[in-house]
Amino acid sequence: MAGELNNTVDRDQKLKENLLKRLNRIEGQVRGIKGMVEKDIYCDDVLQQISAVQSAIDSVSKLVLENHIRTCVVTKIKKDDQEIIDELLKTIGKML
Amino acid sequence: MAGELNNTVDRDQKLKENLLKRLNRIEGQVRGIKGMVEKDIYCDDVLQQISAVQSAIDSVSKLVLENHIRTCVVTKIKKDDQEIIDELLKTIGKML
Amino acid sequence: MAGELNNTVDRDQKLKENLLKRLNRIEGQVRGIKGMVEKDIYCDDVLQQISAVQSAIDSVSKLVLENHIRTCVVTKIKKDDQEIIDELLKTIGKML
Amino acid sequence: MAGELNNTVDRDQKLKENLLKRLNRIEGQVRGIKGMVEKDIYCDDVLQQISAVQSAIDSVSKLVLENHIRTCVVTKIKKDDQEIIDELLKTIGKML
Repeated sequence: MAGELNNTVDRDQKLKENLLKRLNRIEGQVRGIKGMVEKDIYCDDVLQQISAVQSAIDSVSKLVLENHIRTCVVTKIKKDDQEIIDELLKTIGKML
Repeated sequence: MAGELNNTVDRDQKLKENLLKRLNRIEGQVRGIKGMVEKDIYCDDVLQQISAVQSAIDSVSKLVLENHIRTCVVTKIKKDDQEIIDELLKTIGKML
Repeated sequence: MAGELNNTVDRDQKLKENLLKRLNRIEGQVRGIKGMVEKDIYCDDVLQQISAVQSAIDSVSKLVLENHIRTCVVTKIKKDDQEIIDELLKTIGKML
Repeated sequence: MAGELNNTVDRDQKLKENLLKRLNRIEGQVRGIKGMVEKDIYCDDVLQQISAVQSAIDSVSKLVLENHIRTCVVTKIKKDDQEIIDELLKTIGKML
């Protein structure tokens, strides 16, 4: 029933939980960086923390892209949907 | 008084407010992505949002690095502190 | 006749010429950087030149990936080839 | 005598040889990719090769930046040259 209404998809439950756990941690890390800025913590320590958040978000991004390709993209290519390729290339181009 | 105790620095007040405003927005964006995952929003839309967060964090990172170089690094180089160079190169190496 | 022997593909002639032209220019740029290093040109000028080569190679990489997805990947997905997805995700993962 | 005429620097001889060796190898790799394109080698194999060149150039870039910071930048900061900081930040900004 879902998947078509309002541009939603049936995302695998395990992946969903994995993503939410990672995003919760990232939210906490961002809050931590705010605290470091407020407390005037030494710049290089702040940069290390920012670096950790960047890696964490990159991982989330890769997970979502991987799932996207394995599910939506494959399904739509099999249905000869040309637009999905253009959309995918645009998104990968932005990510690179 | 600050600046030496507990590895803190005297960060410019304007920069501090700028960083906190950006970090607050990033925190909100991350929460937004969590909502998108929970509501099974289409992957490509999630990827766009993640991309926006990545750009936002990159900007914060550049701002902190720029301030770091202009203040701590310059001051310490003038005091012949060799370690600051090693630390800076390690951090830039990680960022690249 | 080509396309299967020795792991080759029928690459579009126009794309091929485009890629070769870009790669020739990159080869020339790399030779130019060697000359700069030999003549002890100022580091920041060398870094600018290296930056230009990096952009040029990134463009070649994107062009090849785009063509790869539009041709090989789409064709193989339609033939239910699962391995092509794994290979693609590994390659994109490396590129990101 | 050098170092000021024609915007050159006294680059360490060992670093120079190291850089030239790396750049020679990169030039050879680029020529190799041209050969792959000419012979219609499979896209994913070409992408692997491009990826190797990108890593190799990134390493050259880091080496030059590191040497630049350790020598020119430090020397000029000690002479209270403000422009070197602006130039460095612009270059790092481009590299990030």
